[in-house]
Order: sequence, then C-alpha cells, then structure tokens
Amino acid sequence: MKKIYFDHSATTPVDKKVLEAMMPYFSDVYGNANSIHSFGQEALAGVDKAREQVAKFLNCESSEIIFTSGATESDNLAIKGVIKALKNKGVQKMHVITTKVEHEAVLEPCKELEKDGVEVTYLPVKSNCEVDLNVFEKAIKENTVLVSVMYVNSEVGAIEPIREIAKIIKKTNDKRLREWEKRRPQERGEKPQPIYFHTDATQAVNFLNCDVQWNYIDLLSLSGHQIYGPKGVGALYVKKGVPIVSLQKGGHHEKNLRSGTLNVAGIVGLGAAITQIDQKYQEKNNAKLNKLREILIKGVLKNVPDSILNTDLKNSSPAHAHFTLPGAEGESMLISLDLEGIAVSTGSACAAGSLEPSHVLLAMGIPAEIAHSSIRFTLGKYNTEEEIKKVIKLLPPIIERLRKMNPIYK
Amino acid sequence: MKKIYFDHSATTPVDKKVLEAMMPYFSDVYGNANSIHSFGQEALAGVDKAREQVAKFLNCESSEIIFTSGATESDNLAIKGVIKALKNKGVQKMHVITTKVEHEAVLEPCKELEKDGVEVTYLPVKSNCEVDLNVFEKAIKENTVLVSVMYVNSEVGAIEPIREIAKIIKKTNDKRLREWEKRRPQERGEKPQPIYFHTDATQAVNFLNCDVQWNYIDLLSLSGHQIYGPKGVGALYVKKGVPIVSLQKGGHHEKNLRSGTLNVAGIVGLGAAITQIDQKYQEKNNAKLNKLREILIKGVLKNVPDSILNTDLKNSSPAHAHFTLPGAEGESMLISLDLEGIAVSTGSACAAGSLEPSHVLLAMGIPAEIAHSSIRFTLGKYNTEEEIKKVIKLLPPIIERLRKMNPIYK
Repeated sequence: MKKIYFDHSATTPVDKKVLEAMMPYFSDVYGNANSIHSFGQEALAGVDKAREQVAKFLNCESSEIIFTSGATESDNLAIKGVIKALKNKGVQKMHVITTKVEHEAVLEPCKELEKDGVEVTYLPVKSNCEVDLNVFEKAIKENTVLVSVMYVNSEVGAIEPIREIAKIIKKTNDKRLREWEKRRPQERGEKPQPIYFHTDATQAVNFLNCDVQWNYIDLLSLSGHQIYGPKGVGALYVKKGVPIVSLQKGGHHEKNLRSGTLNVAGIVGLGAAITQIDQKYQEKNNAKLNKLREILIKGVLKNVPDSILNTDLKNSSPAHAHFTLPGAEGESMLISLDLEGIAVSTGSACAAGSLEPSHVLLAMGIPAEIAHSSIRFTLGKYNTEEEIKKVIKLLPPIIERLRKMNPIYK
Repeated sequence: MKKIYFDHSATTPVDKKVLEAMMPYFSDVYGNANSIHSFGQEALAGVDKAREQVAKFLNCESSEIIFTSGATESDNLAIKGVIKALKNKGVQKMHVITTKVEHEAVLEPCKELEKDGVEVTYLPVKSNCEVDLNVFEKAIKENTVLVSVMYVNSEVGAIEPIREIAKIIKKTNDKRLREWEKRRPQERGEKPQPIYFHTDATQAVNFLNCDVQWNYIDLLSLSGHQIYGPKGVGALYVKKGVPIVSLQKGGHHEKNLRSGTLNVAGIVGLGAAITQIDQKYQEKNNAKLNKLREILIKGVLKNVPDSILNTDLKNSSPAHAHFTLPGAEGESMLISLDLEGIAVSTGSACAAGSLEPSHVLLAMGIPAEIAHSSIRFTLGKYNTEEEIKKVIKLLPPIIERLRKMNPIYK
C-alpha cells in the first residue's frame, strides 16, 4: 500500500537536494566550526553560507541570525531572552502581549514569565482564528515591552495580521519617542522603552513573505523541518540592537547568544532548504496547494454530512484544511485513516496524546464537545490530485461508521 | 596533501556505519516522532531503539534518558534544572560544588546560579589536573545539594576520580539519612536533602566505563559528535527520582523535560554511535591510542628541547597529549602545523579565539606566561603511526623557527 502523507505541518521529509547539500558535512567536512585549523574553517564556511542564505530569505544581515536547535528553542530564546535582558537593564513591572492561539513553545515560556512576575495578556481571536487589531491596540499598556504573535496558526492555518500588528507597535513606539523628545532635556528622564515584536513564523516560511523589514519584525523564529530541511535545527532572527541574553550558557557560540557546538550539517541543511523556497517557488507551490486544497475541501464538505471547515479560505496557509466532523472522534478518524495508509492529525503533533480539547479551537469559539471531532490536513509539495481523490473517497464511509458507533450522535 | 586530524576532542567525523543508520530518517522515515499515525510511529521506533542503546551503554533505564541538542544543553539542563526544581520545592540557601577545570558549559551555568544567590565552590586541582578527594570532602557543607565534576578534562585529558567523589557523596547522604532516622519521629522534621552528583562525560564515553550504577551517578551529560556520531544531538541521564525541571518550554516532549520536535536522525545516529563503543571496542581502541600517543610523546619530548607534557600518563584519556613548548605561541604553532595539513588545537575549541590563558592550565599551576605556549593533540580511531611520525618530524623545526622569532625566549 502506497502511503499518503497529509501532515506537513507536523514535519516534512528532507528534500533530496537539501540532503545532498548536507552530506559532505557528516564524515568529510567534519571539523568543529569553532576550530582555527582548516578542518574547522571549512565547516565554518558551510555555516557562513547557510547564515547568508537565511539572512537573504529574511532580508536581514547575516549577523542578525542565531542558529538554534529548532523553533521551540528560538521561541524560548526570543521571549525569555528579551525579558531577561530588559530585567538586567533594570526594567521593572513588564507587560507582554501574546495570543490564546500560539504554539506551546510561546505559551509555556509566557506562563513561565508570569510566575516570575511579568504580566501577560493572552489576546482572544475572532471565529476565524485571527487577532482583532482593535482588541490588540487596546491591550497595549504603558509597560508593554514585548508582543509575540505567530504568523500562521499551526492548527487551522489562519494568517495573523503580523504586519498590521507590527505597524501599530511602530506607531506606539514612535509616539512615545516623540512625546519624550518634546519634553525639555532636563525633564526627559530615560528614553522610553520600546515594544519589541516577535513572531513564530514556523508555519509561514514555506508560503509567505517573511521579509523582516517589510513586516517590521524584531525577532522571528523558524525551523528546518517544516520547510523540507532537517529536524534539530532552527534559527532566530534578532534585529540589531534588540536587547537579548542567552539561556543556554557555555562556550559563547553564536555571539554569546547560544552556546554549544554548531550543528554544521543541520545548519547547512537549513540554509539549503530556505534557498529553495524563494518567492517564485512560493507562488507556484501556493497555487498548486490551493488547487489541491479546493478539491479536498469541496469533496469533504459535499460527501460528509454536517462537516464544518475551520480554516478561513480567504486568509490562510494554502497547506491547511481543518475540519470538525461532529459525531466522529478525532483520534478515531486519524487511526481509521492511518489504517488506510493516510496520515492526518487531530491538531498540533506537539499536543498529540493530550485529552484536552485544542486551545486554538476553544479560542475560536468552537464548543468543547465538538472540538474533539476535528482533523487537520496539511498538504505538501509532493502531494498529488490522485492522493486527494483517494482520501475524499475513503473518508465518508469512515465517518459514517464512527458516527454509527457513537450513541449520542443522531 | 593528505590532511591529518589530531583534534578529536573538538569533534570527530561521523562513522560511516552511523551515517548509514541515520540515512533513512531524513527523507524516508520522516515522521514527527510525536505523531500518532504510522509515519510518526516509525520515527518513534527509531528514537525508542536509540534510547535503549544509550540506556544499555550507561546501564540505566530507557526512561532515564533525555535527548538534547548536545552536551552544552545537557549540562545546562542538569545544573539549572535541578537547582530550579529544588527551589520550586522550597529549598533555600543552596550550595553547589564544581571544579575550576570544568568546561564552560558547566562553569557558565554555575556563574548564573551565583547571580541567583546560590553559593558555588570551585574546587582547585592538583598539578596533574585531578581533584583532591580530601579537598572535595572538606568542601561539602550542610546545604550542599549538587556536585558537578567532569569525567575527563577536555584540555589535558585528566581522568577525574568521579567514582570516589560519588562514593563520598553517597556516604554523606547515607549519614544524613541515618541521623535523621535516629531522631524521634516527632522531632525529625523534613527528610534531609540529598546531594546529587552530575558528571559531564563528554570526553569520557569513548574510552571509559560510564556505567551510572557502578559510578553512583545521578546525572550524566554526553554528546554525539565526540563519539563519531552527529553534531547537534546529546543526551542527559537523569536517575529516576532526581528532582529536575525543564528549561526549554513548549510541547512537553521528553517527559516534559525538553520540549521541541525530536531530532530523529540525530538521535538514531547517537544510538548507533554509542553502540559501537562497547567495552571490547574501548579496550582495543584505548590500546591503539595509548601506543600511538607513546610514540608521539616520546618523539616530542626528545626532539623539542624544553618541552613539557601536561597530560598525566598514569591517569588520562588515551587520546590526549597536551604540551607546553615555552617560547612558541600556541596559535602560531597551530597555524604552522595547519599549513602542513595537520590539525591540532590550543585547548578547547569552544574557547578558540580567546586571548585569555586557559583556565584549566592556570588551575594546574602552569604560569600564565607559558600557558599560552601550549598545544593539544587528541588522537582518534582513524589515526595511524605514519601520521604520528609525520608530525614528530615536522614539529621540531616549526618550534625552532617560532622560538627564533621570539625576542624574549633564549
């Protein structure tokens, strides 16, 4: 049985060309990129090239890229690293804004901040999972220092208005600065503390414009394995001048922001992967995925009675199609499809096995009792129309069977 | 020119068999090990096998292994994770013991603890870089909660008496418990806080017995790339029952001790690498390296006047040969040898580029003015006698030339 993979949001296969680029760095160019001798310098050249590739994609300087072990580490470093740096600078009573629909890699660090006395506002979202800009603007306080809003929601695929959010932040920062400048020098006091903007772009890089200048971004997290690169490697963009300190201490690698021997092969793989997803690729791949997704969605909505689409087609990653199919339990659907060789998920892979209904769906206003009846398809560049047609054919009888087994579904 | 690599302490090439084991996990078995479907379960099977392989090597349970991004992360997690857990339990005024010769991945987290009000004792070492057991025992205080001593020093190769240190800790813990038990139940108060023992075994796993039971170890850090496995992956052994909390927060992976998508290929590589270095391999490889090292050391001491060997041959990793060659600057020696295609280092790769004299050599009592005149050879399993003979021939004229250029060396 040829298996079908519709879980690209959880992870992607390493592209053959990416793997080719990585291969020399395991057993041939194996030096420690920190070593002075030629073995080290050759490894460093690979790292330097990858750093330039990531910087080019994000439209920033190479020196603004920190390599990490993945997006979770990048998110932790961005959020806790900035707050710690500000604390070290003497900033007190800080306020952070994030959303109720972030990935755990953002939510959990925020909860940790709360334990340390930082106030955190978790913004609600609209029914399509989007942050309301008015609600956001009203949430900004005098002591707000950091905002973290994801670019694309990993569960339902909603694109958050990060550029508009960043513009509001910029406007606020500019206003604060102007007011400060208006005061007479002897009455000014310290320069006003700007608000920094972080976005977890893990689910966006494959599809959207991640130009950090155009989007007014201060910190951006991304990972290799969501863009047909390897697992175990990620990056954090830190705009020059943003205060941040390291969490992982040691040999002072990565401008002392991330200690630990550089994962040369992984970094080279991340660079090779990100080079492949330029604007031209994105346009072509987005068009392809949009077309496949349309067939999938039409098929499911038509053939599965009472099916609900949670992904807002007007504003989402083209990979995502997230459904609630009341009466059928998510994990049962997943397992039934898996038996047919088709991989989907019930939500984030990181939350797999959890019995709690998805925090994202709850935030969107989907009732807890039907939130469990959800499955997520996330399409990838190797998927075909034939695969879509197969799942459209296989899904309806599965749902019918599961609903028949459900005593409370009528 | 065929290049020669004598810097195995900095990193090793990935063994071909290790790479073979990893290969399927990039583009074929590419699932997220947290996913429920078959793609995920196949990836998880690879991770599970690797976990068993690491556990077998350390003689512990699979459930006691946490996969990380490398030894630096493992060290940070062990030290800061245990202290944070104890703090959460309400333990106050804690004291930690480590040594002056640890890797930065231990020293820097300890410095961080000091900033947070934890008292840290940095033990001195004897002239051969070994910790004095009497000095250690006297350093233990009523409020000592954690001891971190490396197994093998990365710079000079000294083997620290970790089993004896662990036995002293066990004796202290047992005594505290007996005294507590002797008291009448109503007068007992809380059970005495045991001291936990962590060792960074990064430079030891390839050569020494790392049985955590036999060595009475509570926490042990290791990394893939020092044992012919990949960079970007490591492990932390945490004995069942040792209090520890995560530093990197997110999707609750690795029993909630290390969030982040599992680096499946890297983890599989670490497992494959550790399986290769069993007792039989260690005995054979140690004998080979000892023989090669003997030739190297005899050759250098004989052919380079005034040369000083800093590695204690009676008690060191067989890979290490660390010399001070007064009058020749370390980095100049390194670069001169590199021009001949020979890779050595001046000390830890992680400290490369630093202008400070090595903290390890200073702790051993080597004067700062000659500490800079040091080079480290670390041999590996692919080195040959021919390579050793080549460097013995090339080194003396290099040193002679450098000394001639040195106005203060006579």
